[in-house]
Amino acid sequence: MEEMMNLAEEVKALVEEKRFSELRVKLCEYNPADIAEAFGELGESIFSVAYRLLPKETAAEVFVDMDPSYQKTLIDVFSDYELKQVLEELYLDDTVDLIEEMPANVVSRILRNSSSAQRKTINELLKYPDDCAGSIMTTEYVNLKQEMTVEDAVTHIRQVAINSETIYTCYVTSPGRKLVGIVSAKDLMISPLSTKVEDIMEQNVIFATTHTDKEEVANMFGKYGFLALPVVDTENRMVGIITVDDAIDVIKEEAEEDFTKMAAMTPSETPYLRTSTFSVWKARIPWLIILTLSATFTGMIISSFEASLSACVALTAFIPMLMGTGGNSGSQASVTVIRGLSMGEIRFADIFRVIWKEIRVSLLCAATLAAVTYLKIFLIDYLLLHSLESSEMLTVPIVVCMTMAVTVICAKLIGCILPILAKKIGFDPAVMAAPFITTIVDALSLVVYFAIATSIIPGLS
Amino acid sequence: MEEMMNLAEEVKALVEEKRFSELRVKLCEYNPADIAEAFGELGESIFSVAYRLLPKETAAEVFVDMDPSYQKTLIDVFSDYELKQVLEELYLDDTVDLIEEMPANVVSRILRNSSSAQRKTINELLKYPDDCAGSIMTTEYVNLKQEMTVEDAVTHIRQVAINSETIYTCYVTSPGRKLVGIVSAKDLMISPLSTKVEDIMEQNVIFATTHTDKEEVANMFGKYGFLALPVVDTENRMVGIITVDDAIDVIKEEAEEDFTKMAAMTPSETPYLRTSTFSVWKARIPWLIILTLSATFTGMIISSFEASLSACVALTAFIPMLMGTGGNSGSQASVTVIRGLSMGEIRFADIFRVIWKEIRVSLLCAATLAAVTYLKIFLIDYLLLHSLESSEMLTVPIVVCMTMAVTVICAKLIGCILPILAKKIGFDPAVMAAPFITTIVDALSLVVYFAIATSIIPGLS
Repeated sequence: MEEMMNLAEEVKALVEEKRFSELRVKLCEYNPADIAEAFGELGESIFSVAYRLLPKETAAEVFVDMDPSYQKTLIDVFSDYELKQVLEELYLDDTVDLIEEMPANVVSRILRNSSSAQRKTINELLKYPDDCAGSIMTTEYVNLKQEMTVEDAVTHIRQVAINSETIYTCYVTSPGRKLVGIVSAKDLMISPLSTKVEDIMEQNVIFATTHTDKEEVANMFGKYGFLALPVVDTENRMVGIITVDDAIDVIKEEAEEDFTKMAAMTPSETPYLRTSTFSVWKARIPWLIILTLSATFTGMIISSFEASLSACVALTAFIPMLMGTGGNSGSQASVTVIRGLSMGEIRFADIFRVIWKEIRVSLLCAATLAAVTYLKIFLIDYLLLHSLESSEMLTVPIVVCMTMAVTVICAKLIGCILPILAKKIGFDPAVMAAPFITTIVDALSLVVYFAIATSIIPGLS
Repeated sequence: MEEMMNLAEEVKALVEEKRFSELRVKLCEYNPADIAEAFGELGESIFSVAYRLLPKETAAEVFVDMDPSYQKTLIDVFSDYELKQVLEELYLDDTVDLIEEMPANVVSRILRNSSSAQRKTINELLKYPDDCAGSIMTTEYVNLKQEMTVEDAVTHIRQVAINSETIYTCYVTSPGRKLVGIVSAKDLMISPLSTKVEDIMEQNVIFATTHTDKEEVANMFGKYGFLALPVVDTENRMVGIITVDDAIDVIKEEAEEDFTKMAAMTPSETPYLRTSTFSVWKARIPWLIILTLSATFTGMIISSFEASLSACVALTAFIPMLMGTGGNSGSQASVTVIRGLSMGEIRFADIFRVIWKEIRVSLLCAATLAAVTYLKIFLIDYLLLHSLESSEMLTVPIVVCMTMAVTVICAKLIGCILPILAKKIGFDPAVMAAPFITTIVDALSLVVYFAIATSIIPGLS
């Protein structure tokens, strides 16, 4: 990243000194993704000048890699001719991504400057819901026929290579556009030229449908190690492919979304440092308010036991520890289960296996924590700090350790069950993570605490 | 996954009925990754029989995709001849992964059955630390020379295709094994046969060194969309490549590690449902104990204000809300920053930009939450529940809202600063996430609460 900052400064200096041919040579040494990153550090007047120095193909690649706000700036300064040139170079899935990010007036300019064939495909791709395979596929792939020879196939690939997002996996379709097989470029390169495509194609093709969830698609890439995955429609007709680079984007996005939701924030696609203060606030504040208000319940529970707390003030000191341990135990279980669900390792049918495992784990944890807590109270609170009196030592540690054990077991069970149920009824399990489960466990641990306290400590009610 | 359970049952039935040729045909319809998954549901006696029916190449691919415990079972039943056959088919990076998972006696059997050339490379690959590019690279790539023509190159590729992990990116090296350029199979396929390789090769090559962190390598794949990345040694000599499928594994592993650490657990490579109860307990209990014990501080703070709390019991009811909101605010900031660090979007040099952003966001959040809390106390606690008396309404809500504001601001600052500092001094920022920051924020919010309370509410000390 340091390197990109240097490149940005060099670009700035060369633009300001109008040393354009030197700048052009300089830029050609870098990868488009690096150029886009360096441009991201520059002001509009600088990068729009530098951008125009790029060779046509590089320009399109740089364009794809830039932030939507920078893309908009460029489109605004483009002539219709320049816009047309960029759109011609873009793969259709990138054009669709662009359209989804741009305001209406920019979108209509983009569509006006696309060919009618492009427009038709774009409109079809735009129809797919945002979370499904159709929305990330491209229609630009190499299409072969069964009866072609390897020589025919190679000739065909040479002709369409420029307009195909990958030539390394080729798709063999029947006259009705049904997908009948795949051939890798490797197989084509090592087979004799006269071999028929149907003799070397792999017929057991793994594919997605346009409505397969894109998270599932990403998991398929992880599992099978594909470079591309074919997508078919409801009638099994080949409609497009998804390439591994798009799958990587999905894997990263889905993980980021889960991280964001688990920390009680609304996911955003903009990198943190480029997000405005107001947008960051907007992504965080609703969840903070909900969680703060839901703490009303814990407050109510404490208020209703005010009398007990005044009678035995020592009990108050253990509230944070009990609630904290409950929350941590619950989020351990919930994060494990939420990620298992995301990665396709845990299904609804596994619910009883999960519960049974968490019961055993939580019993072990509960026993350990109760023992540690008892020792800690005895050694630190009683012997070292003298914050408990001898008379209290007969009851308070027992109440605390029993509550600890019950809370840990309940927290782990709630933590593992809620996300699975959420997924079953179509909710996002990640939202069920730490903060929400913590709120439930907080209330629960207090109820358990006071119930046990009033039944064990004489004089409480 | 349902489909794999069905396949598993079918395999079991066919093995038990000894219908082996039928089973062999059936298995050939599936992808090796699916076969491995189905075998994972079967007992040792069943899957080791089924495994032997697989064609040689498929067998190796299935082997790679199986769990280490199943791999060990297979190696134990293999004859030396069978083991040699599998090892011949494996790519060297997969062999190295296997060796890292196996116990010593199995490792020595594997090495005994490798060729001396293989053994030499394996030993070199084993020397690289676990978290760097060297540990995930393979040495089996296509190596071209500058003076070759496209025709020479294609002939060479045909010869080495079987033993190369990818043929789609070819690496051009000088006589001293220095990396001088890369050529894609696409460029070779569309260029005239007489063209020199040096005329079509890309000279500005992006590469990793053997000691580049593997997380950084994975980020490079995400950024540049590569199918493979060359790895050079300290003297710039080409030593291997990393392929995109291994990069996907790293991306997924690193995200899982961060998830696990942020939820205060020790990461494990085994899927949850296959991990033993004892191992799950072992991954969770140390963190729970540390966090429980660290709650001693919050307990001490409460104990030292026992007198104040008895004088104004209403204060106790707000403790969970204040601590909860502080914890949630802090983890929002810390998770954002931790992920930014992991993805390479935030560097140490950005620390002041991050702090400045969090100051503004936290001021907005603090103001909003203080206002919401005041309203909530007035409407719910005072008017609806009557849990506060009129005299308390003059002081308690002010104390609570001021504490809320101060806590939220401190929590967000601590949440963003600690992970960056941790990374700077070589600690894992993910460990600084929610649970630890929560413990610090818990203690802090209590100190602030009691300090404000004693200075505002008359009669407290």
